[in-house]
Amino acid sequence: MIHRLCIVGVGLIGGSLARALRAAGRVEEIVGTSRNGAHLQRAEELGVIDRYDTDIASAVQGADLVFVSVPLGAMRAVFQALKDSLADDAVLTDAGSVKASVVEDARAVFGAVPGNFVPGHPIAGTEKSGVEASFAELYQDRRVILTPVEETRPQAVATVRAMWEAAGARVTEMPVDHHDEVLAATSHLPHALAFTLVESLARLSDQREIFEYAAGGFRDFTRIASSDPVMWRDICLANRGPLLAAIAHFTGDLAELAELINDADGERLLEFFETAKRARDAFAG
Amino acid sequence: MIHRLCIVGVGLIGGSLARALRAAGRVEEIVGTSRNGAHLQRAEELGVIDRYDTDIASAVQGADLVFVSVPLGAMRAVFQALKDSLADDAVLTDAGSVKASVVEDARAVFGAVPGNFVPGHPIAGTEKSGVEASFAELYQDRRVILTPVEETRPQAVATVRAMWEAAGARVTEMPVDHHDEVLAATSHLPHALAFTLVESLARLSDQREIFEYAAGGFRDFTRIASSDPVMWRDICLANRGPLLAAIAHFTGDLAELAELINDADGERLLEFFETAKRARDAFAG
Repeated sequence: MIHRLCIVGVGLIGGSLARALRAAGRVEEIVGTSRNGAHLQRAEELGVIDRYDTDIASAVQGADLVFVSVPLGAMRAVFQALKDSLADDAVLTDAGSVKASVVEDARAVFGAVPGNFVPGHPIAGTEKSGVEASFAELYQDRRVILTPVEETRPQAVATVRAMWEAAGARVTEMPVDHHDEVLAATSHLPHALAFTLVESLARLSDQREIFEYAAGGFRDFTRIASSDPVMWRDICLANRGPLLAAIAHFTGDLAELAELINDADGERLLEFFETAKRARDAFAG
Repeated sequence: MIHRLCIVGVGLIGGSLARALRAAGRVEEIVGTSRNGAHLQRAEELGVIDRYDTDIASAVQGADLVFVSVPLGAMRAVFQALKDSLADDAVLTDAGSVKASVVEDARAVFGAVPGNFVPGHPIAGTEKSGVEASFAELYQDRRVILTPVEETRPQAVATVRAMWEAAGARVTEMPVDHHDEVLAATSHLPHALAFTLVESLARLSDQREIFEYAAGGFRDFTRIASSDPVMWRDICLANRGPLLAAIAHFTGDLAELAELINDADGERLLEFFETAKRARDAFAG
């Protein structure tokens, strides 16, 4: 049982975790904090949190578990703000989509990565954001990746694992760098492509007409371009290396496809599309 | 009222049109044809068509409206097969996703584009294919683009327009080349990107693991990579010029995004994502 959970940044991710743990009867008290009082008030009104405090330092006092779900660019400032009031035995975890940068932030602020800090990433979310969009089932059967480092205490990992499992998630562990490469390929690159496609079409002079003739496939394909721009700016900056590598890799493969089209090589085009369809169907299956 | 509608290629597109016109009470008899007897038998069993004939030439005899919904690569052979038995006053239309190539096929087979041929394209479909996937509501409120050429008789255009409106679609007209450019941007390019992304990930050695950590956004983004590979091979070959131009344009914009990431230019990254989000949200409106 978590006695006092402090959630820093009560949006879709933090709010959904609060709802899930509450529904599972795994938490006694939930305190929300962030620098935005209006958001916190809304979270309290919705019953997502029990109370709130816009002062992060005082909000984390007495919490046995602190969950940080803020954009990556705000992570270091949050660590700085909570550093001196975090209880020695409190477990600290986060929901950042990039792990190397968060570990670096922790190291910079605390001097070394604290043994009770468990870097984590729930692979869940929608293109919506904000506490209004949160719901208790968001993590049901979804993956959560924990990336403990050398300094991380096994007992802290166990606590965070139990928290996520109580929320319905399936928890796995992997090294920080591997996480960042996998996510660059499966999430950050697709978002970069969707944003670029929409940006590209929006720039064309007859954009209104162009969007008018876009069909269902386009709608699905570009849904992720509705995601929060601040969050994605931060992800691009925080996962620069792996994301640039993924973009370069993709650009090469796209050039290969363009060459097949240019050569009117029907046989290899068919092969290309068949391989992709097989992989996609196996994945969706 | 259509007395006898002949559908060449009774899959998702042809089957859904048959169901819609039947539901609207706008057709007396529907004859299916293609070279695949098994598919046609299934369509008859499902009640989508009244009867079928695997000989295209005899199937079109006596039809007042002939609708060709086959992959673009089969279009010319179909025109060749039906050429000599098509009634003089029969109206011929198609559902090809590229219009310049179909007009060229018609010109090559008939010597000139027949006055009763109306090139058309319903902007509808799912990633599924086959008559089993067909349904009467597929065209409800969807766009159908007709691209009549100089030779096309206005009366033939009116007939095809009335057919699509009876199926629930909103019909617009535009020049052939403009259609092909718009569709390259809104449909062919996104499909090329989705196929390339999945193909790219499938090639990586740890592909199973990679797909395992892909979340909902990836699922949406790559759904269109489950589309029929033959159809997409044909589209790539038929719309080569406009599609290569769209890929080149996109590659340039992606390189621009990569540069912003590489420069860690947070301000312009935010702008980029905000523009895209605004455009996507306005489109999804």
